[in-house]
Amino acid sequence: MTKRNLFYAQSGGVTAVINATACGVIETARANRRQIGAVYAGRNGILGALREELIDTGKESAKTIAALRHTPSGAFGSCRYKLRNPAVDNTQYERLLAVFQAHNIGYFLYNGGGDSADTCLKVAQLARDHGYPLQAIHLPKTVDNDLPLTDCCPGFGSVAKYVAVATREASLDVASMCETSTKVFILEVMGRHAGWIAAAGGLAAERDGDPPHIILFPEIAFDRAKFLARVERTVKRNGYCVIVASEGTRYADGTFLADAGGTDAFGHKQLGGVAPTLATMVKEALGYKYHWALADYLQRAARHIASATDVEQAYAVGRAGVEYALAGKNGVMVTIERAPGSKYSWSLGEAPLEKVANVERTMPRAFITRDGFGITPAAREYLAPLIAGEDYPPYHNGVPRYARPTNALVPRKLKTRFAV
Amino acid sequence: MTKRNLFYAQSGGVTAVINATACGVIETARANRRQIGAVYAGRNGILGALREELIDTGKESAKTIAALRHTPSGAFGSCRYKLRNPAVDNTQYERLLAVFQAHNIGYFLYNGGGDSADTCLKVAQLARDHGYPLQAIHLPKTVDNDLPLTDCCPGFGSVAKYVAVATREASLDVASMCETSTKVFILEVMGRHAGWIAAAGGLAAERDGDPPHIILFPEIAFDRAKFLARVERTVKRNGYCVIVASEGTRYADGTFLADAGGTDAFGHKQLGGVAPTLATMVKEALGYKYHWALADYLQRAARHIASATDVEQAYAVGRAGVEYALAGKNGVMVTIERAPGSKYSWSLGEAPLEKVANVERTMPRAFITRDGFGITPAAREYLAPLIAGEDYPPYHNGVPRYARPTNALVPRKLKTRFAV
Repeated sequence: MTKRNLFYAQSGGVTAVINATACGVIETARANRRQIGAVYAGRNGILGALREELIDTGKESAKTIAALRHTPSGAFGSCRYKLRNPAVDNTQYERLLAVFQAHNIGYFLYNGGGDSADTCLKVAQLARDHGYPLQAIHLPKTVDNDLPLTDCCPGFGSVAKYVAVATREASLDVASMCETSTKVFILEVMGRHAGWIAAAGGLAAERDGDPPHIILFPEIAFDRAKFLARVERTVKRNGYCVIVASEGTRYADGTFLADAGGTDAFGHKQLGGVAPTLATMVKEALGYKYHWALADYLQRAARHIASATDVEQAYAVGRAGVEYALAGKNGVMVTIERAPGSKYSWSLGEAPLEKVANVERTMPRAFITRDGFGITPAAREYLAPLIAGEDYPPYHNGVPRYARPTNALVPRKLKTRFAV
Repeated sequence: MTKRNLFYAQSGGVTAVINATACGVIETARANRRQIGAVYAGRNGILGALREELIDTGKESAKTIAALRHTPSGAFGSCRYKLRNPAVDNTQYERLLAVFQAHNIGYFLYNGGGDSADTCLKVAQLARDHGYPLQAIHLPKTVDNDLPLTDCCPGFGSVAKYVAVATREASLDVASMCETSTKVFILEVMGRHAGWIAAAGGLAAERDGDPPHIILFPEIAFDRAKFLARVERTVKRNGYCVIVASEGTRYADGTFLADAGGTDAFGHKQLGGVAPTLATMVKEALGYKYHWALADYLQRAARHIASATDVEQAYAVGRAGVEYALAGKNGVMVTIERAPGSKYSWSLGEAPLEKVANVERTMPRAFITRDGFGITPAAREYLAPLIAGEDYPPYHNGVPRYARPTNALVPRKLKTRFAV
C-alpha cells in the first residue's frame, strides 16, 4: 500500500473540544506511519484547501499535539464558508480535488456540523466521479447538538456543563440578594434552532423547585402572557425567578424574540439579544429589578470547565475517523452510540452522509415538560451523562496553559492561485 | 469572662468566596466555645438584625459549615440596604442595639464593602456612646477591589481569575474564526468606578501582542476616535481585536457609555450595556462583524474557577475577625498586607474604620499603560499572585455540589416588630 497524506480541517463555530478531535486524528495518524504520510490541516478550515494553505502538523512536537486535547477553539483556524452548489458551479470542488491530488491526499477528515457534512459528502461524490481514490470521513462537531444519527455531538457536553454550572452559580447569587435587589435573572444561551443547550440549564436543579424556574426553548412557541404569569408566580412564591433562554426563542409565527439583524455566510440569521428583550418585558409588565447575562463565546470556549465525557468522545471521534479511513470507509460520519441500560456507556458507529447532511435534530417534545418551561426526567437522563466528569487543563500563573502550534505551511505545488 | 454571642452578616453584592469568610468566622468561633456562645447570622444581612431574623448557625453540621468554603454567593442572604444617617434618624441604629442586647451579642462581624464599613463604624460608635460592650469588626469583601488600606479585597481574586480565563478562552475562539467571521469581540466586566476587574483581563496575555488588545478602564476618559483608530489598527494587524471593557467606562465629562437607568439602594447608578454600545460604534464606524459577552453575575458567582489565593485569604479574614474580636479590638477592618519582595506572601493586619468608610480606591495611573489601553508590568506584578492557584469545589452529577444550610431562625425575644 502506498503511503498517502491526510487532510484535516475544522469548520464552522469552534468548541471547547474540537482540538481534542484534532489531537485524536493526528496522534492516530502518527501511530500509523506505514499507511499515512503527512498530516496536513487546512489553515482556516476548507479555505486552506482552496487556497492551498496547508499546515504541516508534522512540524509540531508530540507535546504540542498532546496539548491540543486540552486547548479550546480551532488551533488551525476554522471558517464560516459555504461552498457553492457544484450542480451550478463546480469550480470550488474541482479546485479541492486539484489540491488534494497535488499533495497526494488520500484521506479527507472534515470536522464540523451539518453544513460541513454536506460539503464532505459532495467531496466524496466528486472524488468517486473522477475515479480519484479518497476516503472522506466526517467528524461531528457542534455545540448545538443538532446532528442526526448520533446520540450526541462533541462540543455539546462541555457547553452543557458550562450552562448547568453557570446557572447553578448565578442562581445562588440571585437567591441571596433577591430580598432587596434583583428579582429576575436571565441567562441567554446558544443553540440556534435547537433547545439542547438551554435544556442543559435544567441540570442546575438538584431538587424539585430549584432554579432555573423557566427554560425557553426554540421548539416551544413563546407566549408572552403565559411567560409573564409564570415569572410573577415564581417571584411571589420564591422571591426570585431564574430564566434560561435559548437565543432561538421565537413566537408562534416564527419571529425570533430578538434578531441581531445580520446573517452568516451560510445564510443563517445571527441571533442574540433575547435576554435584554425579556428583561425589558418583565420590567415593563411586572416592575421587577432584573439582571441578565449573555455568555456568548465564553460558553463554547470554556475548556476550563469541559465535560470529561465530551473530551473523551471528541478525542475518540478523531481517532475513529482515521481508523475508518484506513479501513476504506468513505462518505460516512463517525457517530456516538449510547448503549441501552441505566448505566451510561457509549461506543462509536457510523452513519452515511446522505442521511446526515442538512438535517437538524431538535429537542423531542417528550424532553420538555407539558407547560413548556422545563425539562422532563427523560431529558435529564439523556443529558446528565454528557456533562459528567471534569477534565481540567494545566495552569500556569493562574490561567490555563493552552497549546500554541506554529502552524507552518507546506510549500505550494500548484501554480494557480484561487480567489475565495 | 461571660460567654457572649456573635452576630455575623453579609452585605452588598455577593462573591464567589464570601461564604469562605463565613466559614472562617463560624469555624473559629466554634473553636472558641469558652468565650463565644452562639453564632448568629443575619437573614439577608443587616435586615436580619433589624427584623430580629437571626439564623442559628449552630443548627448546621460541621460538614455544612465546612462546605461553605467552596460555596459561592451569600449563604445567609445579603442585601443592598443603606441605613439612614443616625445624625438625622437614629431609630435603625437604636433597633440594632436593642436586638444585640436582647440576644446577648458581644461580637458584631460585618462582611461587606465600603458602605458596610461605614455602617460597622456607626454601630461601633453607638455601642460606645451607650456604654454597650461590643466588638465591631469589619470583614472586607468586594469584587471591585476598591477598599483602601488593604492590599486586596476577598472576592476580587476570583472574579479576576474568571475574567483572565474567559478572556484567554474567548480570544482563542475569535482568533480561530476571524478570517470569515467575527473580527471584534467585547467582554464587558464589572468593577463600578474602579478598573481592577477590567485590568485582570490583561492577565490573559502570555506574550507581547497577545489579546486582549484593548482594555477600557473607568479611570481613563473614553475617547471615541482614539478607540476606533486602535480597533482598526489591531484588526488590520492581527485579523481581529479583543476588548475588555469595564462597566464604568465613561467619557471625559463623566457620562457613562451606557447607563442602564436605575439606581440601587445606596444611590449608585446601575451600570451595564457598555459592550453593546461599543459594538454598535465599531460596526457603524468600521463595519466589522462583532460579538460581545456580558458575564454579569456569572463572573462573581464563578466559584468553580475561584482563585485558591482568594479562597485562602477570604477564610483567613473570617478567622482573624473572630480573633480580633476576642482580643478586644473594635471599629477596625481586617486587612490583607503584602510583604515586600518579589515572591508573593501576605499576612493579616487591621485598619481603623474611620479611614476605610466611603473611600474608593481606583487603579493607580502607573498600572495603566501610557496609551490608556493596557496594563503595565507593575499592574501585572500586583495582580498575578491574586489569581494564583485553583481551588475546585466537589462535583456531583457533573455540577458543583454547594452547601445548602437550613437557615433556621432563633426565636424572637423582642415584642416589637420593626418595619424596614
